[in-house]
Amino acid sequence: MISIVGHTAVDHICRVPFFPERHTSVYTLDHRIFFGGGAANIAAGIATLGECCELVSAVGSDFPGGAYERHMADLGIVPRFFQVDDRPTATAFMFNDAEGDQITFFDWGASAVFADAEAPSLPFVHMATADPSFNVRVAERSEFASFDPGQDILKYDREQFEAILEHISILFANRHEAARMAEVLGISMDELADRVEIAVFTMDSAGCMLCTGGERRTIPAVRVEAEDPTGAGDAFRAGFLTAYLRGLPPVRCCTIGTVTASFAVERMGCQTNLPTWERMAERHRQHFGPITEA
Amino acid sequence: MISIVGHTAVDHICRVPFFPERHTSVYTLDHRIFFGGGAANIAAGIATLGECCELVSAVGSDFPGGAYERHMADLGIVPRFFQVDDRPTATAFMFNDAEGDQITFFDWGASAVFADAEAPSLPFVHMATADPSFNVRVAERSEFASFDPGQDILKYDREQFEAILEHISILFANRHEAARMAEVLGISMDELADRVEIAVFTMDSAGCMLCTGGERRTIPAVRVEAEDPTGAGDAFRAGFLTAYLRGLPPVRCCTIGTVTASFAVERMGCQTNLPTWERMAERHRQHFGPITEA
Repeated sequence: MISIVGHTAVDHICRVPFFPERHTSVYTLDHRIFFGGGAANIAAGIATLGECCELVSAVGSDFPGGAYERHMADLGIVPRFFQVDDRPTATAFMFNDAEGDQITFFDWGASAVFADAEAPSLPFVHMATADPSFNVRVAERSEFASFDPGQDILKYDREQFEAILEHISILFANRHEAARMAEVLGISMDELADRVEIAVFTMDSAGCMLCTGGERRTIPAVRVEAEDPTGAGDAFRAGFLTAYLRGLPPVRCCTIGTVTASFAVERMGCQTNLPTWERMAERHRQHFGPITEA
Repeated sequence: MISIVGHTAVDHICRVPFFPERHTSVYTLDHRIFFGGGAANIAAGIATLGECCELVSAVGSDFPGGAYERHMADLGIVPRFFQVDDRPTATAFMFNDAEGDQITFFDWGASAVFADAEAPSLPFVHMATADPSFNVRVAERSEFASFDPGQDILKYDREQFEAILEHISILFANRHEAARMAEVLGISMDELADRVEIAVFTMDSAGCMLCTGGERRTIPAVRVEAEDPTGAGDAFRAGFLTAYLRGLPPVRCCTIGTVTASFAVERMGCQTNLPTWERMAERHRQHFGPITEA
């Protein structure tokens, strides 16, 4: 079983006619609540693809008995939660106006407990965006680890990146994150890639680059009608890690990650349209040929 | 039993260092979730004071099994809900910056169903802020009705105010709402007061004015250390209506409403510090003397 470490979050997405001025209010045109948080998104992706998955995360007073808890239970995600009773679950508030502009408020909520929490010792762990110090402690105690810095990348310092790179086998980053990591470490992106067994740098519509054993290989993206790019990276990692758990070679893990991500962007919300292994395999066949079990 | 008609809402209140510019995000300093919505606040107040109370409201997909449902059940509020499965419960998002400015986003959510919902026939009903057309239909079918226009006052037109005034016995409004109603109706505030058996105009720290039988009487406010004025009006109405249900005369209903409101403002959130009858009676004794049952 794989363990995913990081945020569980609730995403509130609202359309508004305009952003309110100070001391005023505005009625929203709509308001949708989505299940989110990087680690929870990856866990949901893996569980939907059919692999056993544990989520090491923090949830707040609004979580027990609620819709998100039921959703996770329905997916068969194994919960390993820090239950925080005096804070809400981490929450993102996103407001989109009529001109297509967006403002976001992100509340860490229950995820604040990571800073002082005891890190579990895990056989196979992916560390998603969350508290740097907790992720360092998890990495140090893990047997096999993978990592993506995600939206909290600016919270990591050089020592924390060094400690994590020393213990991980797989690194995921988009090009901005990879550039930032390389800059903080004072090395090139090539040197960064060579610090780990497998590095995967995602490049939006340009696909992804797989770096392993000194080799570089580009895998093209799958073009679909995208409604919401949020969650593409998490779905990619879910697909990649599920394929990796099933013993498939890195390039196949990348094509499966790419196809999984193509489903996630077709609907609003990060967990709204995650594919089963069969749906993923069908689209994979059209774009990359059949999945041959290694 | 009294029925309260109107919004159930979830209030998210966040502190932020600054409001984000377009296309940027900000981490919140804290985020608290409170139980809110005008009708639900009044129902919670009445239930806490010890009277039986039914809440006629709309709730969304996030409500069943969640903390708010449990909270209402604990209070003994009798639910009479329109359950809306494709929208969240009405939600208020309030963000306060370091300079003390606030912006608010209000989502009607599940409350949108009021517009087309069939109105129940109720023996004793208070209509809180919500859909004007639904409130008109409720008023027409009620045996004894009371009303406050609240934050949705701008949604009411002259015909709707006229239809409601024709059927209600008690009108609550703060001075801005009373002025607005009088303006829309083309009458003076005195004439507005004389359209109903009892009119109560609240005036913040100046207390409230009771208008009944052509007489005017001012009841002073109870001074307390106020942390959050939100919910004062709802708590006032809860206190007033509970006292009215117990057969107390209008001036006593006003002093009990005033004392109940003084508790609500002492804590953040509209339902955080509602008093039991005993706590209320104790403070009432200090400010207005003992409550003598009529």
